[in-house]
Parts: sequence; C-alpha cells; structure tokens
Amino acid sequence: MSLVRVHNFSVSLDGFGTGEGQSAESPFGHAGERLHQWFFKTRTFREMHGQEDGGRGVDEVMAANWNPGIGAEIMGRNKFGPQRGPWENHDWNGWWGDNPPFHTPVFVLTHHPRPSVEMEGGTTFHFVDAPPKEVLSRAREAAGGLDVRIGGGVTVVRDFLAEDLVDHMHIAVVPIVLGRGERLWDGSEGLEKRFHIESVSTPSGVTHVTFTRR
Amino acid sequence: MSLVRVHNFSVSLDGFGTGEGQSAESPFGHAGERLHQWFFKTRTFREMHGQEDGGRGVDEVMAANWNPGIGAEIMGRNKFGPQRGPWENHDWNGWWGDNPPFHTPVFVLTHHPRPSVEMEGGTTFHFVDAPPKEVLSRAREAAGGLDVRIGGGVTVVRDFLAEDLVDHMHIAVVPIVLGRGERLWDGSEGLEKRFHIESVSTPSGVTHVTFTRR
Repeated sequence: MSLVRVHNFSVSLDGFGTGEGQSAESPFGHAGERLHQWFFKTRTFREMHGQEDGGRGVDEVMAANWNPGIGAEIMGRNKFGPQRGPWENHDWNGWWGDNPPFHTPVFVLTHHPRPSVEMEGGTTFHFVDAPPKEVLSRAREAAGGLDVRIGGGVTVVRDFLAEDLVDHMHIAVVPIVLGRGERLWDGSEGLEKRFHIESVSTPSGVTHVTFTRR
Repeated sequence: MSLVRVHNFSVSLDGFGTGEGQSAESPFGHAGERLHQWFFKTRTFREMHGQEDGGRGVDEVMAANWNPGIGAEIMGRNKFGPQRGPWENHDWNGWWGDNPPFHTPVFVLTHHPRPSVEMEGGTTFHFVDAPPKEVLSRAREAAGGLDVRIGGGVTVVRDFLAEDLVDHMHIAVVPIVLGRGERLWDGSEGLEKRFHIESVSTPSGVTHVTFTRR
C-alpha cells in the first residue's frame, strides 16, 4: 500500500515550522538556520551537497529514513523557490542545482503553472494547481506503487493533515522559541487520536517525534 | 544562592499549558487530564494523595525533583482555586485538603487579598497583590535561603520568564495537539539564548526538557 509520508520536518518548541520574513536570502525568515542545524550535520544532508563528512548518529538515522520507498514528492512553491506571483521566466529550477536530491517526480503546488522540467538524475518538476486530494492522486500514479512524500513547507503539511491524508510523519522538535512565523499545528487539534506517537531525544537536543496512522 | 525554579509543568506539542474553558469541574478546561497523565502515575503524585502505588521510572525521577531544596512557592490564584473576583468567604483553602503537599509558605497571587491561612504540615498560604519581583523578594525571605518554586499556572510562569526571573525550569512536552487554551511560550522568543537546554523522552511518550540559566 502506498503511504503518504512527511520527514525531517523541524518545528520550534512553540510550533513554528518557519520564521517570519521569508526571502531569497532568508528562506526560513528570522529563524535562520536554527531549525535545521541538526539536519545540516547529518550524512544525509551533507551527501546531497557532495560532502562525505556528515554524522552517523541517531539524527542521521532519523534523517536517512526520508528516502527509501519514496516514488514522488509534493512540495509547496515556497519550498521550490523564493518567487511569488506569475513566473517572470522559467530560469529558476529550484535550490538544488542540475541534479536535485529527489530523483523522482516532484509536484510543485502553485497557482501559476508552467511546463514540466526534467532535471538530471531522475527528478522531474511538475507544476500543478489543484487541491490536495487531486495532487495526491497524480503523485501516487507517478510513484508507481511507492510512497509519496509531502516535502513541505508548513502550509502544505497542514493542508494534507487537515484532510487526513498523512499516514506517517516525522517531526523534529528543536528546543528554541521562535515566537513568530508559520505554525505547524494550527487546525490539528486532537491529532493524537489519529496517530500512534513516539518520541526520542538525541544528544543534539532535538526530539524526534514519529506519527503513525492508528 | 537561592534559585527560582519551575517543575513538572506540562505543555502540549502546540505549546498550551492549559485548555480552554477552565472551571471548578474542569481545572484544565478541554485539555482534561491529558496534559498530566504522565504525572498522575508517578510516586510523587500518588504519595500526595496517600497512595503508594506510583511509578518509579524516569517520569518519577523527573517529577520528584520538584521538592528538594524548595523553601517557598509562588502560584497564581487560578491554581489555588476556581473562584474569580472578590472572595465571597474564606472557606476555600485550596484543592489539597487540610495538609497540602507544599509544607512551606505559599504566595498566592491575587488582586483580592485575604488573611493568611496556616494549614497542617507547614504550609501557609499568603495572598499577595504585587508584581513578580516584589512577590519574589517576599518569597525569598520566607524561604530562608532555600529556592523558590514558581508553581504556575501558565500566566504566572510566563510573567516570571518575561522578567528573566527564572533560573531553572522543567517542562514536560506531552505529544498531544490541544489547539486552544493558554500558550506558555508567548512572549519568550529567543529563550534559548538565556538557557542551556536538554531533553529526554520517556516510554510514557513525554519529553522532559530542562532549562538551566546560562
């Protein structure tokens, strides 16, 4: 059975998945890199950037779980790039260079469609303007029986949670208080009734929380 | 040196320390007992109620740390009782019976003072209408060189954090999404700059987070 999964999604103690004031220079706004420092040190992240010096501890074990079994990703336009409104041109192909780390079809949610673009290494970006269920249906078809990852950002995860479309979720609670930004948990009151939840803290100070559909 | 400490303070994943709709029947509002189930199972809690069947695991170790070295407590009126506004009479002496578990002076913050009341076992309730620093000064004097505990609820902890009066804090993050109520972290942006923070998850699913002033 093809599952819908969320991985390596960081939130602050006060539940913010991104800071205020996002821009090309500050993709996470005033949060800076604080939400993802644990992830940047993992082998999974370092290998995406051609480095071999990443950690192999529990943070890495949690991080590495993002990829196996995934056949497609769905992401919001804000994850794809800093542009807003109609595309001025089609030069931007994401933050990840010619060979993005996805290696699957990736469905980018946007009200401003543009032609699909095939990258090196198996990643193809499709631009879609459709509600969660419809996008999921397309992503599932593209995934060929494998799982579909919801790649974020905050509003995309929230929308899929609200429609009860998520089967498994890995959230990393980072011990900082952001105070401002986008809240992941808004609209998810009583989430614990739908999921079996487990937690493990690691020496980096992060607490990994897994949600598995009951 | 006399420290100001917070212990066994539970919040949900979305940062609520109590639910919406508090009343005499539902002291934590719609949160019910969900925030404190881990605590109710500990030996520390069970002994407060004359029972000897409490747990002795890591949750208990964390819970038991609330008491040693404490010479006074400061609590909000909403923790003391469900009444609001002027006291109709002085019959109510807290939720804890004739012999409350504090065994120290307890300063109850209220805009409606009433005479101090001496209970069995060393607990004396004092009713004070003063800003945090002033109450703390009185509590410190009463504590005779020992530490002062901030007993909650949410707004009291928040007020003492806002004035940077807290030296040590133990927060239990419970894996539920409350959605409504009073948020602990509001106004505490950047708290991590002031505290060294450590986390440990336990089999109950709770993550204990300790904050120690840097």
